[in-house]
Amino acid sequence: MTLKTLSAKAAAALDRELMSTGAFSIDQLMELAGLSVSQVVHRVHPLSKGKRILVAVGPGNNGGDGLVAARHLRHYGYQPTVYYPKRPKNDLYQRLAKQLEDLEVPFVDDFPTALQSADHVIDAVFGFSFSGEVREPFPAVIQAMAESKVPVTSVDAPSSWDIEEGPPKSGVGSNFHPDVLISLTAPKPLVKHFKGRHFIGGRFVSPAIAKKYDFDVPAYEGVDQIVEVGPDGLKL
Amino acid sequence: MTLKTLSAKAAAALDRELMSTGAFSIDQLMELAGLSVSQVVHRVHPLSKGKRILVAVGPGNNGGDGLVAARHLRHYGYQPTVYYPKRPKNDLYQRLAKQLEDLEVPFVDDFPTALQSADHVIDAVFGFSFSGEVREPFPAVIQAMAESKVPVTSVDAPSSWDIEEGPPKSGVGSNFHPDVLISLTAPKPLVKHFKGRHFIGGRFVSPAIAKKYDFDVPAYEGVDQIVEVGPDGLKL
Repeated sequence: MTLKTLSAKAAAALDRELMSTGAFSIDQLMELAGLSVSQVVHRVHPLSKGKRILVAVGPGNNGGDGLVAARHLRHYGYQPTVYYPKRPKNDLYQRLAKQLEDLEVPFVDDFPTALQSADHVIDAVFGFSFSGEVREPFPAVIQAMAESKVPVTSVDAPSSWDIEEGPPKSGVGSNFHPDVLISLTAPKPLVKHFKGRHFIGGRFVSPAIAKKYDFDVPAYEGVDQIVEVGPDGLKL
Repeated sequence: MTLKTLSAKAAAALDRELMSTGAFSIDQLMELAGLSVSQVVHRVHPLSKGKRILVAVGPGNNGGDGLVAARHLRHYGYQPTVYYPKRPKNDLYQRLAKQLEDLEVPFVDDFPTALQSADHVIDAVFGFSFSGEVREPFPAVIQAMAESKVPVTSVDAPSSWDIEEGPPKSGVGSNFHPDVLISLTAPKPLVKHFKGRHFIGGRFVSPAIAKKYDFDVPAYEGVDQIVEVGPDGLKL
């Protein structure tokens, strides 16, 4: 069995389909995606390894997944800190941020400094819709994650990587190799270049949708919202 | 420690607060509530005990929780069947039903017949906002659950029970004693009359909110969205 992946274009079409004919709201999908991310962090970095989780949040849906994950991690007993330098006016993101403020989760402005006292980092800066150049203030954030020894879990894509081609040949992100990746719904082609622990999450895809987009729903266990897979896409 | 409960009035106020100043959408809260319900069913009735879960769905939010639970159970590998005789035009409920149709979950019209081939039942007919009389077609549904030997899990309240006083003294529901109850956010006063296994779910309440409404957030474990509690409200 070879690993089936979902191109950036197909991933965008799948998202649109889930939210139109699939009748899901973005609130629902983001809640389940963020919950998956929180379960991966709990799996790879249990509370006993340190509670301080720094979440780097980008301006789009990938960032929204990070905000949801931070909330669930707080409920699990972690102490998340959120770096969210570009807050869109979008109502959903505002609400997700408010939910964290009500849990007294701190928002910080200085990512490199926050990184020095973090036990684990969630990279929720850019997802499958990223292409082109990393805009300010994120080059320094990606550089800091690349150079730090603090383990990083990336959501859907290591930020700055090309969704099809993987890490950039030079410049920002060329030396960024996160320890853990969670692919939401299905892996993107960049996973061929990823060497760390790989999870799949987003347990809401119907068999009919998976068939239409030609990928496999992985063998989740019990009530888990995530499953760890090997290079062939099969459960470890 | 005595069990702290939330009156019907306080539960309604809490819901309103979560969705106003708390900034949660009903889609988010219902997704997490329904996920909790699905985890209880998986805990008390693992796949090995039979996959056929019949979900009795009422016309309000309690019913919505049941629809979400049915979807997650389908993803866990169960074969849910849904009885949903009063479908409101409300967009959210329509969408939750469509999500089940896309998973080929059957909707049935005859509850007593469906009950004969069920391994477990979810009672998501009425929740904390119920009071007064059980309206058609639900008296026969509650009667069938009361008389059946198929185990029942009730969502937030055994349907037909008074939220403060418990089972009605006579008539519909007076002989209805479900095996399992999941209280969402906090137990309601009726739990004093409940003798089965009791879980708490809905892991989204901030310490500040719990303090304001004078109840305790139970000691959830790991990434669980549910916790089983004893008569004193402490974790078993």
